[in-house]
Amino acid sequence: MQYSKVEGGFMMHIEKGEKIMETITQFCKENEINNAQLSGIGAVMNIDIGAFDINSKQYIRKNFKDVWELVSYQGNVSLKDSEPFIHAHVTIGNHDFNIKGGHLFEATVAAVGEFILRKFDNNVYRAFNNDVGLPTLCMENKL
Amino acid sequence: MQYSKVEGGFMMHIEKGEKIMETITQFCKENEINNAQLSGIGAVMNIDIGAFDINSKQYIRKNFKDVWELVSYQGNVSLKDSEPFIHAHVTIGNHDFNIKGGHLFEATVAAVGEFILRKFDNNVYRAFNNDVGLPTLCMENKL
Amino acid sequence: MQYSKVEGGFMMHIEKGEKIMETITQFCKENEINNAQLSGIGAVMNIDIGAFDINSKQYIRKNFKDVWELVSYQGNVSLKDSEPFIHAHVTIGNHDFNIKGGHLFEATVAAVGEFILRKFDNNVYRAFNNDVGLPTLCMENKL
Repeated sequence: MQYSKVEGGFMMHIEKGEKIMETITQFCKENEINNAQLSGIGAVMNIDIGAFDINSKQYIRKNFKDVWELVSYQGNVSLKDSEPFIHAHVTIGNHDFNIKGGHLFEATVAAVGEFILRKFDNNVYRAFNNDVGLPTLCMENKL
Repeated sequence: MQYSKVEGGFMMHIEKGEKIMETITQFCKENEINNAQLSGIGAVMNIDIGAFDINSKQYIRKNFKDVWELVSYQGNVSLKDSEPFIHAHVTIGNHDFNIKGGHLFEATVAAVGEFILRKFDNNVYRAFNNDVGLPTLCMENKL
Repeated sequence: MQYSKVEGGFMMHIEKGEKIMETITQFCKENEINNAQLSGIGAVMNIDIGAFDINSKQYIRKNFKDVWELVSYQGNVSLKDSEPFIHAHVTIGNHDFNIKGGHLFEATVAAVGEFILRKFDNNVYRAFNNDVGLPTLCMENKL
């Protein structure tokens, strides 16, 4: 992974063969980035995605082995168990321009992975929420 | 809705049962946010979306009652009739990872709603544009 | 195209009949923007998109003539042959709320085109990568 420091964050090029979630998580740990906004585009393969079933409180999962365009990647970084944790959703497109998508567990870059991380100097964290069945973001203010 | 002030804006957790557009609009009004960039992910239900028909100059509308992943949410805040107004588009994904999407009128958070708002200290506003049939953004500079 | 300078960048309204890629590229050249993050929503027509085939190292291309919602637009600006160059991916939605998408070559605004550009004062550039078959981002740091 190559990166360049920019105003408020980083431009990142996750290279062919690298895993997106693993690479960005490692980058956050090494750079003490606890909170951030993430976005990106590229082309990916071996894409492990999910959809949360609010009844079973489990993710339904599917793996897409082939190469797809990474059409959109949006996510955030927060602390989970005191470590930087990425929550990201993606849309992916095939050679017929059809789109699939959902919660991203992991994907491997097939051509390029171009990401922008906007760092926040906060310590927003996740705690398990029994009602939701997921670790949800905890913040200091209430509307 | 919980929120945390970050560099240049806010991280927001719109909680289960809360309406996204109503909640963010109220937040903007209470915090005098007239212009902003919005992005987000989550899981939503009772999703009211539209597609603008440029001939009839009307939105074709559809409501998705079930729970869908909120795969991407992108939008902006501007002034309309002197009040903060959100224009946002979404993609949503079901349990087969199929994707629908369009202009978002409203959606209710089904599990989590994680948003980032980047505030701008401008007063870009919308005025009705007869040619387009919509209130369009008005800015001081022309390319 | 109308625009307004905001914290860290620009809000832009690309108007009906204007080409998105051509307009933003011209804007970057005139304003000496070499690196940036782009996002946007709107309604577009005559949409020329592609999907990269990693075997032939060519884009498979398709043109969508009709009007579609521009549901998401994400991209970046870098230098290619010493000129600002946009790499962007889009999802588009039709009147049945079905979604297509991929790499954007060009699209014309059919109603509105609302974009936000976040400027970076860097000079990240692209150089042709034989292994990938595309000009890829080159940055000074390695993880």
